[in-house]
Parts: sequence; C-alpha cells; structure tokens
Amino acid sequence: MYQELLDHIKKYVQLSPSQQQQFCEKLQLITLKRRAFLLEPGKHCQGNYFITKGCMRQFLINKKLNEQIIHFGIEHWWIADQDSLLNNQPSACYIQAIEETELLLLHEKDRISLFKEIPPLETYFRIMMQKSFVASQRRIGFIFNQTEEERYRHFSKLFPDFVQRVPQYMLASYLGFTPQFLSRLRAKKDL
Amino acid sequence: MYQELLDHIKKYVQLSPSQQQQFCEKLQLITLKRRAFLLEPGKHCQGNYFITKGCMRQFLINKKLNEQIIHFGIEHWWIADQDSLLNNQPSACYIQAIEETELLLLHEKDRISLFKEIPPLETYFRIMMQKSFVASQRRIGFIFNQTEEERYRHFSKLFPDFVQRVPQYMLASYLGFTPQFLSRLRAKKDL
Repeated sequence: MYQELLDHIKKYVQLSPSQQQQFCEKLQLITLKRRAFLLEPGKHCQGNYFITKGCMRQFLINKKLNEQIIHFGIEHWWIADQDSLLNNQPSACYIQAIEETELLLLHEKDRISLFKEIPPLETYFRIMMQKSFVASQRRIGFIFNQTEEERYRHFSKLFPDFVQRVPQYMLASYLGFTPQFLSRLRAKKDL
Repeated sequence: MYQELLDHIKKYVQLSPSQQQQFCEKLQLITLKRRAFLLEPGKHCQGNYFITKGCMRQFLINKKLNEQIIHFGIEHWWIADQDSLLNNQPSACYIQAIEETELLLLHEKDRISLFKEIPPLETYFRIMMQKSFVASQRRIGFIFNQTEEERYRHFSKLFPDFVQRVPQYMLASYLGFTPQFLSRLRAKKDL
C-alpha cells in the first residue's frame, strides 16, 4: 500500500479498503537517479507519475536550442505529458529528475480501466486536471501582467522551499527570463 | 433535447436515451445580447456554459487597466471560470458576449450530482478538462518560444474563421501584443 498517495486521494474522494488495495496493485514504483530521464521527445508518455520523493522537471528544447521548463514536480505532485496521453502521440518534451526521485507510475491503460471499477478515482483525476488547468491559466495571467521582478517575487512567496531547492538557471527558464537577470534580482538585498 | 451538445458528448462517451433526457433536463438555455456580461468580478461563476451560437470572451482587467483576454469561446466550446468553480470563490474575471450568443448552462451543483447518476458524464468532463489543460500548456510554450509575428501566424492558421470574426484589438489582447502591432502585421501582404 502506498500510503502517501492514498492520503493525497483521501483529501478529495473516499476509497474503500478493497478499492485502495485494487488501485495500489496497479502502481509501479520507479526510482530515478539524479539527471535520469523519465521521458524523451519521440517516445510515448506511459501514464501519470506521482512523486513520493525528489524533484522533477518537464522541459522543451526551443528553436534557439535553449531548455524551456514548462513544469516542475515535487513530493505529492503528479507529472506526465498530458498532450501525449490525451492524443496518444509521441511526446515533444523531456521529463527529467533534478534530484534522486521516487515515483509511482499509473499506466494510462490501467487508469482508464480502473475508472470503470472505481468511479471515485475518476472524480479524483477530474479534480486534479481541473486544478492543473486553473494553475496553468493563472500562470498565463502572470506572464502577461507581471513584470519579471514581480513574477519572481510572487513565485518565491508561493513556493519558498522550491526556490531554495531548484538550480537558479532552471527557475529562470521556468519564469521566462535569463539566469543573469535572476542573479541580479537575487543580489538585491530585499529579496 | 439539445442535439448539438449531445452530438458533442457522443464524440467522447455514450449516453443512453434516458441519460440524455436526464442530462438535458438540467440544462438552462440562456440568450445574451452583444456585449452582455455572463460573469463579473466579485460574483460566483454558476457553472459550465456550452455555446450553441455566438462568441464569448473571458478577460481580466490588469494593473494598467487594460483588458487582458484569457479565453475565447465559439460554437461547441465550453466556457466558465474554473478557478471560481473549483475553489468556490468569487471570480476575478469577466465573461462577455462578443456577438448575440446562446448558451446552455449546466449548474455546478447539478453537474456534480449528475456524475453519480451518469458516470460517463464525468468521463466526458474529465476529458474536456484534460483538453483545456493541454491547450493551456501549449499556449505557454508559444508565448515563450514564438515571436509575436510567429504567434499571430500560428493562431491564424489554427483558427482562420476566428481571426475574421473577432475584433482586431481583442485578438491582440489575447496574443499579448498591442493593436497597433497587429495592424502592422495584417498590413503585410503575405498575411
């Protein structure tokens, strides 16, 4: 039984002990070394991954051959290429471990078949997807309406541990500015 | 019976005739005149709206007191403030009709209670949310990795009818540049 994930699910829906058992039997524990890749362009994303320990990043290589980070994941977050899963097509992105990371993989096929047997699980994933969409919409609002400095301050306030944990150049990539700009920002006394 | 919406649902899940009936009984037809508001800041979003005719926009007023369009909706698209629905909190945005518009409202309370009675409906909305999330993630990629001109060309290619239908200044707001810049772009012969 994977208690951390069950506790996370419990915040949103109730599963009976037998449903918990049935669900956990489908999960596959994966351990990744630092810098190991979970997904690379051209490959199909296998399913949704729940992080129990560590830190992941999802990124694209843009036309200037720079890494553009589109998503981070830490403990108790899900990570996946939803585009690859939804459209059953090869991924365009990388998913990589920033630290040594432990994840629970729920294969897409198992997820879909479990929904029929355990309807509250579908409710849980519907809510997870709605939360991800809302976060993504908010991020678009911030990109358009905040200056780079405001964006950094806002992000630091929301995720203080995260800012300490992730290398500076990755944070800059996620927020859409250069590492040099971020260094100057952090050098300011009031940050 | 609202056939357009049932046809849309049929692309993703199967509902029995009695489920279709039960679902349609919960829908409320709303007609909006051009420029009428469906939602304003401070009010709670009531549910999800399926557009059967017309065109809507969702926007914020940013700190510079400019309108920032975060979403458009045309026929067969859903529109709602998911943040307000998910967190049961007052909205921060406007949803307004660009043209005279007809929508079907599915109240949030009804939607949640229907999920228990009609599980495929929850599947449908889970997929809709996943599609919205993927579109939103792609949009973030475009904002960071395309020049303004590339973003306009790409959008025009994906949604040619839309570009003709929506006022130029709204399109500029959605794509994150000034109406003046868009005018210069459109004046170029090759667009």
